[in-house]
Amino acid sequence: MAAKHPSSIEETHELRPRFNADGLITAVAQDAASGRILMLAHMNSDALRLTLETGVAHYWSRSSGALWKKGETSGNLQSVVEVLVDCDQDAVILKVHVSGDGNSCHTGRATCFYRVVARGGGSHRLEFAGV
Amino acid sequence: MAAKHPSSIEETHELRPRFNADGLITAVAQDAASGRILMLAHMNSDALRLTLETGVAHYWSRSSGALWKKGETSGNLQSVVEVLVDCDQDAVILKVHVSGDGNSCHTGRATCFYRVVARGGGSHRLEFAGV
Repeated sequence: MAAKHPSSIEETHELRPRFNADGLITAVAQDAASGRILMLAHMNSDALRLTLETGVAHYWSRSSGALWKKGETSGNLQSVVEVLVDCDQDAVILKVHVSGDGNSCHTGRATCFYRVVARGGGSHRLEFAGV
Repeated sequence: MAAKHPSSIEETHELRPRFNADGLITAVAQDAASGRILMLAHMNSDALRLTLETGVAHYWSRSSGALWKKGETSGNLQSVVEVLVDCDQDAVILKVHVSGDGNSCHTGRATCFYRVVARGGGSHRLEFAGV
Protein backbone atom coordinates (compact mmCIF):
# COMPACT_ATOMS: atom_id res chain seq x y z
CA MET A 1 0.00 0.00 0.00
CA ALA A 2 1.08 3.57 -0.55
CA ALA A 3 2.73 5.38 2.32
CA LYS A 4 0.48 7.75 4.23
CA HIS A 5 2.96 10.49 4.94
CA PRO A 6 2.52 13.18 2.29
CA SER A 7 5.73 14.91 3.36
CA SER A 8 7.81 11.78 2.96
CA ILE A 9 10.22 11.58 0.07
CA GLU A 10 7.93 9.02 -1.57
CA GLU A 11 4.75 11.05 -1.35
CA THR A 12 5.84 14.66 -1.61
CA HIS A 13 4.96 16.89 -4.54
CA GLU A 14 8.29 18.63 -4.12
CA LEU A 15 11.22 17.78 -6.31
CA ARG A 16 13.93 16.97 -3.77
CA PRO A 17 16.58 15.02 -5.65
CA ARG A 18 18.78 12.94 -3.42
CA PHE A 19 22.25 13.30 -4.87
CA ASN A 20 24.74 10.68 -3.76
CA ALA A 21 28.12 11.26 -2.12
CA ASP A 22 29.47 12.28 -5.53
CA GLY A 23 26.63 14.76 -6.00
CA LEU A 24 24.91 12.64 -8.64
CA ILE A 25 21.61 10.99 -9.42
CA THR A 26 21.11 8.32 -12.08
CA ALA A 27 19.28 9.15 -15.28
CA VAL A 28 17.75 6.72 -17.74
CA ALA A 29 17.01 8.07 -21.20
CA GLN A 30 14.07 6.35 -22.85
CA ASP A 31 12.76 6.93 -26.35
CA ALA A 32 9.45 8.71 -25.87
CA ALA A 33 7.86 7.06 -28.88
CA SER A 34 9.07 3.47 -28.74
CA GLY A 35 9.77 3.05 -25.03
CA ARG A 36 13.20 1.72 -25.85
CA ILE A 37 15.83 2.46 -23.24
CA LEU A 38 18.65 4.40 -24.89
CA MET A 39 21.29 4.96 -22.24
CA LEU A 40 22.03 5.33 -18.58
CA ALA A 41 23.96 8.33 -17.32
CA HIS A 42 24.35 10.61 -14.33
CA MET A 43 23.33 14.14 -13.45
CA ASN A 44 24.59 16.61 -10.92
CA SER A 45 22.36 19.46 -9.79
CA ASP A 46 23.46 21.70 -12.66
CA ALA A 47 22.73 19.01 -15.23
CA LEU A 48 19.27 18.43 -13.79
CA ARG A 49 18.52 22.15 -13.59
CA LEU A 50 19.66 22.78 -17.17
CA THR A 51 17.67 19.79 -18.42
CA LEU A 52 14.52 21.08 -16.76
CA GLU A 53 15.11 24.69 -17.82
CA THR A 54 16.03 24.05 -21.44
CA GLY A 55 14.17 20.85 -22.25
CA VAL A 56 17.38 19.38 -23.64
CA ALA A 57 19.14 16.56 -21.78
CA HIS A 58 22.29 17.50 -19.89
CA TYR A 59 24.36 15.01 -17.94
CA TRP A 60 27.46 14.94 -15.83
CA SER A 61 30.28 13.10 -17.51
CA ARG A 62 32.10 11.14 -14.84
CA SER A 63 34.92 10.29 -17.25
CA SER A 64 35.66 13.89 -18.20
CA GLY A 65 34.46 15.46 -14.97
CA ALA A 66 32.39 18.02 -16.83
CA LEU A 67 28.87 19.03 -17.63
CA TRP A 68 27.78 17.34 -20.82
CA LYS A 69 25.10 18.63 -23.16
CA LYS A 70 24.35 15.36 -24.88
CA GLY A 71 24.67 15.65 -28.66
CA GLU A 72 26.27 19.08 -28.61
CA THR A 73 28.97 17.97 -31.02
CA SER A 74 27.16 15.12 -32.85
CA GLY A 75 23.88 16.97 -33.30
CA ASN A 76 22.04 14.10 -31.62
CA LEU A 77 20.41 16.27 -29.00
CA GLN A 78 17.85 14.67 -26.73
CA SER A 79 14.69 16.77 -26.50
CA VAL A 80 12.97 15.98 -23.25
CA VAL A 81 9.28 15.18 -23.48
CA GLU A 82 8.78 14.11 -19.87
CA VAL A 83 10.81 13.66 -16.69
CA LEU A 84 9.80 11.09 -14.09
CA VAL A 85 11.33 10.68 -10.66
CA ASP A 86 11.43 7.53 -8.60
CA CYS A 87 10.16 6.85 -5.09
CA ASP A 88 13.30 7.85 -3.23
CA GLN A 89 14.23 10.58 -5.71
CA ASP A 90 17.68 9.33 -6.55
CA ALA A 91 16.87 8.41 -10.16
CA VAL A 92 15.03 9.99 -13.05
CA ILE A 93 13.71 8.85 -16.40
CA LEU A 94 14.00 11.24 -19.31
CA LYS A 95 11.57 10.46 -22.08
CA VAL A 96 13.22 11.94 -25.14
CA HIS A 97 13.17 12.44 -28.86
CA VAL A 98 16.66 12.25 -30.33
CA SER A 99 17.57 14.63 -33.16
CA GLY A 100 20.25 14.30 -35.81
CA ASP A 101 20.87 10.73 -36.85
CA GLY A 102 18.97 9.50 -33.81
CA ASN A 103 21.87 7.82 -32.07
CA SER A 104 22.49 7.97 -28.34
CA CYS A 105 25.45 5.61 -27.97
CA HIS A 106 29.03 6.73 -28.52
CA THR A 107 29.57 3.57 -30.61
CA GLY A 108 27.24 5.02 -33.25
CA ARG A 109 24.18 3.02 -32.31
CA ALA A 110 20.68 4.15 -31.41
CA THR A 111 20.95 2.64 -27.94
CA CYS A 112 23.79 1.66 -25.62
CA PHE A 113 21.90 -1.55 -24.87
CA TYR A 114 22.61 -3.33 -28.16
CA ARG A 115 23.69 -6.69 -26.73
CA VAL A 116 21.54 -9.42 -25.25
CA VAL A 117 22.85 -12.01 -22.81
CA ALA A 118 22.36 -15.43 -24.34
CA ARG A 119 21.44 -17.77 -21.54
CA GLY A 120 22.32 -21.37 -20.92
CA GLY A 121 25.52 -23.27 -20.43
CA GLY A 122 28.23 -22.36 -18.01
CA SER A 123 29.23 -19.09 -19.59
CA HIS A 124 27.12 -16.37 -21.09
CA ARG A 125 27.60 -15.02 -24.56
CA LEU A 126 26.48 -11.62 -25.77
CA GLU A 127 24.52 -11.46 -28.97
CA PHE A 128 24.26 -8.24 -30.87
CA ALA A 129 20.69 -7.12 -31.20
CA GLY A 130 21.16 -5.92 -34.76
CA VAL A 131 21.19 -2.22 -34.05
CA MET B 1 30.31 4.54 -36.30
CA ALA B 2 30.81 1.31 -34.45
CA ALA B 3 34.22 0.64 -32.93
CA LYS B 4 36.43 -1.71 -34.91
CA HIS B 5 38.03 -3.57 -32.03
CA PRO B 6 36.11 -6.80 -31.47
CA SER B 7 37.92 -7.42 -28.19
CA SER B 8 37.00 -4.04 -26.76
CA ILE B 9 34.45 -3.86 -23.99
CA GLU B 10 31.97 -2.35 -26.47
CA GLU B 11 32.34 -5.01 -29.14
CA THR B 12 33.10 -8.19 -27.29
CA HIS B 13 30.72 -11.15 -27.18
CA GLU B 14 31.93 -11.89 -23.66
CA LEU B 15 29.93 -10.84 -20.65
CA ARG B 16 32.49 -8.87 -18.63
CA PRO B 17 30.50 -6.77 -16.19
CA ARG B 18 32.40 -3.80 -14.88
CA PHE B 19 31.48 -3.59 -11.24
CA ASN B 20 32.18 -0.26 -9.57
CA ALA B 21 34.29 0.37 -6.46
CA ASP B 22 31.41 -0.99 -4.37
CA GLY B 23 31.24 -4.13 -6.50
CA LEU B 24 27.98 -3.11 -8.16
CA ILE B 25 26.45 -2.52 -11.56
CA THR B 26 23.19 -0.70 -12.17
CA ALA B 27 20.10 -2.63 -13.23
CA VAL B 28 16.96 -1.22 -14.81
CA ALA B 29 13.88 -3.41 -14.65
CA GLN B 30 11.54 -2.85 -17.57
CA ASP B 31 8.16 -4.46 -18.13
CA ALA B 32 8.70 -6.86 -21.02
CA ALA B 33 5.20 -6.34 -22.40
CA SER B 34 4.60 -2.60 -22.01
CA GLY B 35 8.14 -1.25 -22.05
CA ARG B 36 7.39 0.68 -18.90
CA ILE B 37 10.40 1.18 -16.64
CA LEU B 38 9.61 -0.32 -13.25
CA MET B 39 12.59 0.35 -11.01
CA LEU B 40 16.29 0.98 -10.83
CA ALA B 41 18.46 -1.13 -8.55
CA HIS B 42 21.94 -2.54 -8.17
CA MET B 43 23.55 -5.93 -8.58
CA ASN B 44 26.73 -7.44 -7.26
CA SER B 45 28.26 -10.43 -8.98
CA ASP B 46 26.17 -12.90 -6.97
CA ALA B 47 22.95 -11.08 -7.83
CA LEU B 48 23.80 -11.07 -11.52
CA ARG B 49 24.82 -14.72 -11.48
CA LEU B 50 21.67 -15.81 -9.67
CA THR B 51 19.51 -13.74 -11.99
CA LEU B 52 21.07 -15.38 -15.04
CA GLU B 53 20.99 -18.87 -13.52
CA THR B 54 17.45 -18.81 -12.16
CA GLY B 55 15.67 -16.40 -14.51
CA VAL B 56 14.35 -14.53 -11.49
CA ALA B 57 15.64 -11.05 -10.69
CA HIS B 58 18.05 -10.75 -7.79
CA TYR B 59 19.54 -7.48 -6.66
CA TRP B 60 21.92 -6.20 -4.02
CA SER B 61 20.15 -4.12 -1.41
CA ARG B 62 22.45 -1.25 -0.53
CA SER B 63 20.25 -0.26 2.42
CA SER B 64 20.30 -3.69 4.04
CA GLY B 65 23.67 -4.79 2.68
CA ALA B 66 22.26 -8.11 1.56
CA LEU B 67 21.35 -10.10 -1.50
CA TRP B 68 17.74 -9.45 -2.38
CA LYS B 69 15.50 -11.82 -4.29
CA LYS B 70 12.95 -9.28 -5.42
CA GLY B 71 9.41 -10.28 -4.42
CA GLU B 72 10.50 -13.12 -2.16
CA THR B 73 8.21 -11.91 0.62
CA SER B 74 5.56 -10.06 -1.43
CA GLY B 75 5.20 -12.69 -4.13
CA ASN B 76 5.90 -10.08 -6.78
CA LEU B 77 8.76 -11.97 -8.34
CA GLN B 78 10.28 -10.62 -11.52
CA SER B 79 10.65 -13.33 -14.16
CA VAL B 80 13.39 -12.31 -16.53
CA VAL B 81 12.57 -12.51 -20.22
CA GLU B 82 15.72 -10.85 -21.51
CA VAL B 83 18.89 -9.26 -20.19
CA LEU B 84 20.65 -6.53 -22.15
CA VAL B 85 24.02 -5.04 -21.31
CA ASP B 86 25.25 -1.59 -22.24
CA CYS B 87 28.30 -0.51 -24.20
CA ASP B 88 30.70 -0.28 -21.27
CA GLN B 89 29.09 -3.17 -19.38
CA ASP B 90 28.36 -1.32 -16.17
CA ALA B 91 24.58 -1.42 -16.56
CA VAL B 92 21.97 -3.98 -17.52
CA ILE B 93 18.32 -3.94 -18.47
CA LEU B 94 16.14 -6.75 -17.18
CA LYS B 95 13.01 -7.19 -19.25
CA VAL B 96 10.63 -8.82 -16.83
CA HIS B 97 7.15 -10.11 -16.14
CA VAL B 98 6.07 -9.38 -12.57
CA SER B 99 4.05 -12.02 -10.72
CA GLY B 100 1.70 -11.60 -7.78
CA ASP B 101 -0.11 -8.28 -7.75
CA GLY B 102 2.30 -6.95 -10.36
CA ASN B 103 3.90 -4.28 -8.20
CA SER B 104 7.58 -3.47 -8.21
CA CYS B 105 7.70 -0.43 -5.92
CA HIS B 106 7.87 -0.73 -2.13
CA THR B 107 5.13 1.93 -1.96
CA GLY B 108 2.69 -0.57 -3.44
CA ARG B 109 2.75 0.78 -6.96
CA ALA B 110 3.50 -0.97 -10.24
CA THR B 111 6.50 1.27 -10.88
CA CYS B 112 8.82 3.38 -8.74
CA PHE B 113 8.52 6.12 -11.37
CA TYR B 114 5.01 7.28 -10.50
CA ARG B 115 5.69 11.03 -10.44
CA VAL B 116 6.20 13.40 -13.33
CA VAL B 117 8.06 16.68 -13.02
CA ALA B 118 5.69 19.48 -13.97
CA ARG B 119 7.72 22.07 -15.79
CA GLY B 120 7.52 25.83 -15.84
CA GLY B 121 7.89 28.53 -13.24
CA GLY B 122 10.75 28.84 -10.84
CA SER B 123 10.13 25.65 -8.92
CA HIS B 124 9.12 22.23 -10.13
CA ARG B 125 6.18 20.33 -8.81
CA LEU B 126 5.73 16.59 -8.95
CA GLU B 127 2.44 15.28 -10.28
CA PHE B 128 1.37 11.75 -9.52
CA ALA B 129 0.93 9.74 -12.68
CA GLY B 130 -2.14 7.96 -11.35
CA VAL B 131 -0.54 4.61 -10.70
